[in-house]
Amino acid sequence: MNLQRKEMLDAVIKKNGLGALVFWRPDELVLAIEYQPLWGLSFLIYTNDDKPVLFIPELEPEDILPENITVKKFPWGDISCNDPWQVLFNMIEETLIEKKLNQLPVSFIKSIGGTSPCMMSGEQPPLPGNLIDSLSAVTEAGYKDATLDLLKLYSFKTEADVHHLKLTHKVAAIAVKTFYENLKPGITESELAGLIEYEVQRMTGRDGINFSKAWPLVQSGINAIDGGKYNRSTGKKLQDAEMVMLEMAICVNGYWADITRTGQTGEVNAQQKKIFETVLAAQQKAIAMMKPGVKMADVDKIARKHIEDAGYKNFFNHALGHHVGFRYHDIGPTLSPNSTATIEEGMLLTVEPGIYGEEINCGVRIEDNVLITKNGHEILSDYGRLLTTQ
Amino acid sequence: MNLQRKEMLDAVIKKNGLGALVFWRPDELVLAIEYQPLWGLSFLIYTNDDKPVLFIPELEPEDILPENITVKKFPWGDISCNDPWQVLFNMIEETLIEKKLNQLPVSFIKSIGGTSPCMMSGEQPPLPGNLIDSLSAVTEAGYKDATLDLLKLYSFKTEADVHHLKLTHKVAAIAVKTFYENLKPGITESELAGLIEYEVQRMTGRDGINFSKAWPLVQSGINAIDGGKYNRSTGKKLQDAEMVMLEMAICVNGYWADITRTGQTGEVNAQQKKIFETVLAAQQKAIAMMKPGVKMADVDKIARKHIEDAGYKNFFNHALGHHVGFRYHDIGPTLSPNSTATIEEGMLLTVEPGIYGEEINCGVRIEDNVLITKNGHEILSDYGRLLTTQ
Repeated sequence: MNLQRKEMLDAVIKKNGLGALVFWRPDELVLAIEYQPLWGLSFLIYTNDDKPVLFIPELEPEDILPENITVKKFPWGDISCNDPWQVLFNMIEETLIEKKLNQLPVSFIKSIGGTSPCMMSGEQPPLPGNLIDSLSAVTEAGYKDATLDLLKLYSFKTEADVHHLKLTHKVAAIAVKTFYENLKPGITESELAGLIEYEVQRMTGRDGINFSKAWPLVQSGINAIDGGKYNRSTGKKLQDAEMVMLEMAICVNGYWADITRTGQTGEVNAQQKKIFETVLAAQQKAIAMMKPGVKMADVDKIARKHIEDAGYKNFFNHALGHHVGFRYHDIGPTLSPNSTATIEEGMLLTVEPGIYGEEINCGVRIEDNVLITKNGHEILSDYGRLLTTQ
Repeated sequence: MNLQRKEMLDAVIKKNGLGALVFWRPDELVLAIEYQPLWGLSFLIYTNDDKPVLFIPELEPEDILPENITVKKFPWGDISCNDPWQVLFNMIEETLIEKKLNQLPVSFIKSIGGTSPCMMSGEQPPLPGNLIDSLSAVTEAGYKDATLDLLKLYSFKTEADVHHLKLTHKVAAIAVKTFYENLKPGITESELAGLIEYEVQRMTGRDGINFSKAWPLVQSGINAIDGGKYNRSTGKKLQDAEMVMLEMAICVNGYWADITRTGQTGEVNAQQKKIFETVLAAQQKAIAMMKPGVKMADVDKIARKHIEDAGYKNFFNHALGHHVGFRYHDIGPTLSPNSTATIEEGMLLTVEPGIYGEEINCGVRIEDNVLITKNGHEILSDYGRLLTTQ
C-alpha cells in the first residue's frame, strides 16, 4: 500500500496505543488504501503489521480491490445466511485474536455525517443499527477515541492520491467543456446538467476508470441570485444574455473534484461583467498567495477585501474554500475569516469566491481546486474561466 | 397532510404513549409528508395535534416544502453561527414545551443503514455525530423504542403515495424506451447508462417534477452472468447477438422505482431465448397470483418452481422480490422461500426472477413493481418486456 499513508496510519496507532483502526465509509477506504467500494459494505481492519485485512461482502467485484492486501469475504446476498453481520464481526474478532491484538483497543470515526456515497449511490449501504457497538466489541479492550487524529488524515493528500485526483480533474475538464459548448438560450438547466453527467458517466471503462459520475447543478439568471443556497437544477430555460452558474461534484474512482464555473448565454450587461471580473480577480489574488505557512484567514481576507473594495461586501456571504478530494467536502479547517489554521503541503483546497444578490439580479461563483506543493501551489482544475467559452 | 398516513402515525404515537415522532431521513420525510429534502437536514417533529412542525435549514428551497405544515428555520450556511445544531435542538425542545409534550417520550428510527439519498446526493448530509443522543434528549422523558411500528410504515403506500409513484413510473417508461432504442453493438455499457440517465434527468422541471434521477446499471453478455452480484456498468462494448441487462433505480420527487429489463443487440441463440422465456413466464405466473391474503412464500415458490422445472434451479439464487417506493429497497418482508408474511393491500413489491450463470454464458432478469390493490394487483411498470424492443 501507499507508504506515505501507511506512515500516517501507523503514527495514529502508536500515539493512541491501538491494536487496529477500522475503516468502512467509502471516503475512508479511498483515503486508507485507494479503494472505492461498490456496495459500501467493506471493512478494513488496519493493523501496523504489514498485513491489514479487508473484509468484503461476497458480492463485491474483485477487479476493483486494491493489490497487496489480505482479502476475506463474508456472506452477502446469500439467502441461506440469516445474519451475515454476526459472521463478519466474528471474523474480525478472530483475525485480531490471531494477530494477538485482542488485548488492545480499536478506534474508528463514529460520526454519521457527510461521507461520500459508494459506487451504488442510489441508496446508502444497509449497515446495521448496532454497527458502532459491534465494532467496539471486536477486542476485549473495546473502543478508544482517536477521532481528531483520524479526521486530520483528510487534509493531507499523498503523492498516490494526487495521481488519482489528476485523473478526476481530467474528467472534470470534459464536463466544463460540455457546459460551455451547450450554454445556449432554450436549453433547460436540467437538460444541460444531464448532458454534462452523460459525458462524465460514459468515461467509465476508459483510462483505468472504474467509476465516473457527476452531480452537476446548473443555475441560470435569477435562479443563481441565492448562490449556494439551493444548489439544484430546475426546468427553467436559459434565456439570452444571461449568466449561468455550474456547480459540480465529480467523482472518479472515489476521488472528488468540486468545480464551479460561470458563463453567459450571450453578452451580459456592464454591471454583470464587472461582477464576474471582480470574482475572478478576487479568486486569482487568493490563489496567488497560497503556499505552506500562509494563514488560511489571510487567504480568505485578500479575496473578501477585493470584493468589498469593489462595492459588493454584502453579496459574498460564505467561506472562501474548504478541503476536497476524498469527499465533495473534506473535513478540515476552512479558508474563512475566523480560521486559525495555516496552509500546509499536501492540502487540496477549493477557492470559491462568489457574488450573489437579488439587487444585482445575478449570481457568480468561480471555484478551483488548489493543491499545496512544497513551495507553492498547483491548480488541478486549471481550465478556462471565461464568461463565454472554455 | 395525507390523512391515511396521519392515521397510521397517530396510531404509533398512541400505542407507544409518545409525545412526538422525529423523522429526518429523506425516505422518512417522503413517507410522512410527501417531502423530499434538498439538503437532507430537515427534521419533522410529528405530533398528533394537527400541527406537526418541520424544521428546515435556512438554505432549503421553499417551493419544495409541503403545504399545510408549520415550518421553522434553523441557521445553516451562516458563517456567523458557530453551532447550528444546538440552535436546532433547542428549538425542538422549546416547541415540545409549548405543546406541553415535554413529559412524554419521543421516538425515531436509530438505524444508520439503507436510507435513500437526499436531492444533494453527491454527499450524505453532514449530520452531527451526537444526533441520536441529542434527539433523545429533546424531552425530559427521553427516547422510547417504537422501531418495529415505524418500520412497518414502509410496507403501506397511501393513495397519495400511489399518485406520486405513478409519476415515477412514467419517467421510468422513458428510461426503458431509451434502453431499447440504443441497444446496438458498439455502444459501451456506461454510454448506454449515461444516455438513460440523461433522459431521466432532463425531466426535472416538467409535470411537477422537482427532482428526477436514475442510477442505471447496464451489464452485457458475460458481464451479466453473475446477475445482481456486481450491479455496475463498465466500459465493455455491446457485441452483436448479446443479451443485455438494465438494472435501474429511478427517483422522482423522492419516490422510487426499481426496474430490470433484459434485451438483445441481435438474435441470441436458442438456449438464451429459452432462458429469457423461462424468466418471463416465471415472473408472469408469480404476478398473476398476487392479491391480499396470499402468502409471500407461495409467490416466490411458483416462480422458483417454474425455473426449476425448466432445468435452471441452480441459476436463480436470490429472493423473488422486495418492497419498493420510499427507497430503492424498502424495508419489510420479502417474497422469498422462508418468508412467513402475507401480501396486503397497499404494498408495492418488486417481482424479479433471474437466471444467471457462467455455464449458460448469460444473465437474464426481468423486474416489475406490483401494487397490491383491494382485490388484486396493478403493475406500475407495465412496459414491454420483449427481448428486442419495447
